Amino acid sequence: MMSADGRQMKALVLDGPGSLALRDLPQPAPDDSCLVRVRMAGICGTDLQLLDGYAGFRGTPGHEFVGVVEDVAASGDRHWIGQRVVGEINVGCGRCRWCEAGVKEHCLNRTVVGIRGHDGAFAEYLTLPASNLHRVPDDLDDEAAVFVEPVAAACRILEQIAIDDRTRVAVLGDGRLGLLTAQVLRTAAREVIVFGRHEHKRAIARSLGLAAEPATGPLPAVAFDVVVDATGRPEGFRGALELVRPRGTIVMKSTFHGEAPIAAWPIVVNEVTIVGSRCGPFPRAIAVLASGAVRTGPLVSRVARLEEYASAFADARRSMKVLFRLSL
Amino acid sequence: MMSADGRQMKALVLDGPGSLALRDLPQPAPDDSCLVRVRMAGICGTDLQLLDGYAGFRGTPGHEFVGVVEDVAASGDRHWIGQRVVGEINVGCGRCRWCEAGVKEHCLNRTVVGIRGHDGAFAEYLTLPASNLHRVPDDLDDEAAVFVEPVAAACRILEQIAIDDRTRVAVLGDGRLGLLTAQVLRTAAREVIVFGRHEHKRAIARSLGLAAEPATGPLPAVAFDVVVDATGRPEGFRGALELVRPRGTIVMKSTFHGEAPIAAWPIVVNEVTIVGSRCGPFPRAIAVLASGAVRTGPLVSRVARLEEYASAFADARRSMKVLFRLSL
Repeated sequence: MMSADGRQMKALVLDGPGSLALRDLPQPAPDDSCLVRVRMAGICGTDLQLLDGYAGFRGTPGHEFVGVVEDVAASGDRHWIGQRVVGEINVGCGRCRWCEAGVKEHCLNRTVVGIRGHDGAFAEYLTLPASNLHRVPDDLDDEAAVFVEPVAAACRILEQIAIDDRTRVAVLGDGRLGLLTAQVLRTAAREVIVFGRHEHKRAIARSLGLAAEPATGPLPAVAFDVVVDATGRPEGFRGALELVRPRGTIVMKSTFHGEAPIAAWPIVVNEVTIVGSRCGPFPRAIAVLASGAVRTGPLVSRVARLEEYASAFADARRSMKVLFRLSL
Repeated sequence: MMSADGRQMKALVLDGPGSLALRDLPQPAPDDSCLVRVRMAGICGTDLQLLDGYAGFRGTPGHEFVGVVEDVAASGDRHWIGQRVVGEINVGCGRCRWCEAGVKEHCLNRTVVGIRGHDGAFAEYLTLPASNLHRVPDDLDDEAAVFVEPVAAACRILEQIAIDDRTRVAVLGDGRLGLLTAQVLRTAAREVIVFGRHEHKRAIARSLGLAAEPATGPLPAVAFDVVVDATGRPEGFRGALELVRPRGTIVMKSTFHGEAPIAAWPIVVNEVTIVGSRCGPFPRAIAVLASGAVRTGPLVSRVARLEEYASAFADARRSMKVLFRLSL
């Protein structure tokens, strides 16, 4: 995709494991999509995994963003121009049986913004079909709206499993995804406890009104109906198997690069259900953010410029959410 | 548990990994249970794992059996005496919240016949509470009735997940558990295909009217709604992940001793659900065996005497079901 008139933009480019650079690239043309000027973009655990070689992605990463539509394809709906938007990241082929069923998240030919075959949001511009866009309400500022994508991923859990006022939930992992997930599940569950390895992150959890316990010692055994593994580390699953009760459910929310040794027999003996969980509903995420049920302010560690990408990515490994501010 | 009058019986005893011996032991007394004279008992994959050290069991293994009640406790219901029975293998404490909910399978203090803290069926006698017993219909002979326990385990899947006339099912594993499971699921599913490594076992599958394909080459990718791993081997799970469609379900029906390296990201990316599945409903198992929907005759490789235990266990590793005949 080339700009019609040769305009340039700044973009981060991942050339291979560990190799990230800031480049001047041609602005993409909207083609059959919308051209979105990125306002803010967030660094996600998946971006750190991509940098480590996960999924073999080459191009511009970044899939959490808020921006403004600057142009649409010639055949497109011009009402989008000027709208502040967030965007679903799976772009379906539109023809397979998954797309026909309205589930572009599992289109076998899909591209995924900033993850698979589609340049992402760590750039001044990206393109996305209008069908992927959601308008951001005026009272949701950029620093909250940039969290819509991961909050939607957390909301996905509520579509997959039954959580109600009898359900005791543990969230393993005190990182950004863990604290977003815990806040989302708190809207439905009887009790949510975050287990994490970092005192300063547990303190942030408590500032959000969440119960938080150390994950460094032995975990309470067979104590929870639902355990969400949001650690992004191979040990997470083992901890989840300790925490979950017989016939309980483990939600695998984060992933990690490579394989982990897993003992399968407790899954069988305790009849545990394990549910893989990925992308979720944007309208629900916008609603829980707009209502204040999910708060993101305490999760923002730093707002960086794109030029500061090296230190921004380094910070993202040890702190909470690092955001890029690309335009105002 | 000692016999009141010092009567002896023959019993296999597992003393430690690889150490199995035939001994003369005192007959157990019924205490608060029923005394069952074992007629037939089957060697299960779990018995082979126990022999390899799984679960650290010491005592008499064997949990698939049919027998006749010879005595009941002084306070017991004497109508059981003389009945031909099969028995559920989990013995609950009767006091915990699982037992109160009627789910003795997950009683945290449970013993399990021939697996955990309760001597099993590779002996002339065993004891079991009357609440674990099910009368065997007269038209179900011993060689079929001895399969009630594993068939119940296969029926458990139908309690856990939705399988109907739109559901395409793959069963990975052409062993005894795989072929029982495939027959049970065929009663509900649109299609069931067994994938196995052994031509002679696939031939048995076909003699039961099942579709059977080699599991030795590449497996059909993302083709099945439900995949049951009945391989009992660490590689089974990897194959199941290949076979299952996005948002499909893997049932872990067999287990293995130790840990297996598992890549977690496909579970998350494809939003796969994994369901651990153990013991199941005996009445339903008796019904599908009595109706002929599940046939066991072609699965019986050998009927051995207890004295032949060494060669019987060796045969059970490479053939289908090996049964012990203990009394007539």
